[in-house]
Amino acid sequence: MIGVFDSGIGGLTIVKELLKKLPGLSLIYFGDTARTPYGTKSPETIIAYAIQDTEFLLEHGAKLIVVACHSASSVATESLRQRFPEVPIFEVVTPSVKKALQVTRKKIIGVIGTRATISSGIYQRKVAELDKEVKVYGNACPLLVPLVEEGWIKKPETRRIVKKCLIPLKMRGIDTLVLGCTHYPVLKPIIQAKAGKRVTLVDPAEEVAEQVADFLKKEPVILDQLTRGEEHKIYVSDLTESFERIARLFMGQKVKLLKADCEISHVIKPTPFKASHI
Amino acid sequence: MIGVFDSGIGGLTIVKELLKKLPGLSLIYFGDTARTPYGTKSPETIIAYAIQDTEFLLEHGAKLIVVACHSASSVATESLRQRFPEVPIFEVVTPSVKKALQVTRKKIIGVIGTRATISSGIYQRKVAELDKEVKVYGNACPLLVPLVEEGWIKKPETRRIVKKCLIPLKMRGIDTLVLGCTHYPVLKPIIQAKAGKRVTLVDPAEEVAEQVADFLKKEPVILDQLTRGEEHKIYVSDLTESFERIARLFMGQKVKLLKADCEISHVIKPTPFKASHI
Repeated sequence: MIGVFDSGIGGLTIVKELLKKLPGLSLIYFGDTARTPYGTKSPETIIAYAIQDTEFLLEHGAKLIVVACHSASSVATESLRQRFPEVPIFEVVTPSVKKALQVTRKKIIGVIGTRATISSGIYQRKVAELDKEVKVYGNACPLLVPLVEEGWIKKPETRRIVKKCLIPLKMRGIDTLVLGCTHYPVLKPIIQAKAGKRVTLVDPAEEVAEQVADFLKKEPVILDQLTRGEEHKIYVSDLTESFERIARLFMGQKVKLLKADCEISHVIKPTPFKASHI
Repeated sequence: MIGVFDSGIGGLTIVKELLKKLPGLSLIYFGDTARTPYGTKSPETIIAYAIQDTEFLLEHGAKLIVVACHSASSVATESLRQRFPEVPIFEVVTPSVKKALQVTRKKIIGVIGTRATISSGIYQRKVAELDKEVKVYGNACPLLVPLVEEGWIKKPETRRIVKKCLIPLKMRGIDTLVLGCTHYPVLKPIIQAKAGKRVTLVDPAEEVAEQVADFLKKEPVILDQLTRGEEHKIYVSDLTESFERIARLFMGQKVKLLKADCEISHVIKPTPFKASHI
């Protein structure tokens, strides 16, 4: 099976693209809704979670991993490849960078994402590896995730917040904008309108699905290991009506979910601080 | 020590009130920033987390627990009292209900909170136990938490979202409004302006601190068990610059934090779903 994980439900946009590009292959998804979101958390915590998520998918039969979460892709990919050297691991940053470099004319690229993604500076590093002349500007837009999750897709407040979010990038003269968070493609029409017609949007979901499909064409041995079938498993670490509603929003259709046993184990050991005279 | 836990940093508003009301007593705080927020998660998950948080505080010397998180107070208090029958456990809902009943003139109370808090119906039940004639209307305002955490305290978008959030409650004619989430007191001026001058705001932080102080006056044996001292310990399960910034916002002053070792253990076992034909 192809294993896909995300901090929550947003990664289903990538599942949708994978199913389009790779019909007939069986998928297993893990959304860590009990600890969502990742984008506000520290790199160390995101790495620990990404390793646990990957272990879960491998234990359940995944032979190839797609990191759908941009925050995890940005800070945890290297750790995952070190920890699981035998597993092909795909992430959303590299294919987005390649696409952005293909489409930029002025060589000025913008990226929007969570605080974890933008602070990582991963886009700047990846672009510099391929083309030192291209400039990359990032801006963290953490409010867009809750706005999408609340279904505020067409509200004037959302339009205003998107506009504010893009101002610093527009001032840099970007002609290409990477939607660096699984939730943002849902806001594509507003983002396009506020970025302007001349800015090309890069949707990582399409790019990573394309990359996985290309890889499997060249690696028939791995392709043979993947299960065929129309049955896909979607696991979440927590279930609420909201998560079901968001799943419909991202998949563009109703997703039939069956709840099974949920067992919650050890607490994350906290980081202790001493604060005197507060 | 007095132990206080919250899903994140917001509970520091309650620490601030406790320090005012109980000077000289030593405090230990646990903010579950690695899994924050709780308010979007299911009751089962919130209960499991609340038990783990309480165990952490008890292991570190707490003799009395204050549940600062409204979502945990709303859905997990009963489970905590069953699990730890020997420990005095305080939560934010009961004292807020008592205060709201004292101040309402028209007997119509509004409550704003997270989805978990409002869906629990706890305010309606608690009020009905004390006065069946009083009407309680709740509205979930999940966007206010990220707006506060991003520091968008005075932005026009925040004012508009607060206004929208209060419309259904104003239409019911409320004269009292419970700020049912640790983050909301930061927005007090906007909430007061949008609710109208005639609406009395109830801040649970003040009420719970008062309740703990009253309890300790009557229970000298428990008071004697509590450590005295000016040194307080603030633990978080994850640390980022943002969390430090939010801590300053809630405490109203800079909080000196010392980072110590962080060890992250087992993953939350996920709830499996089968989704066919997605």
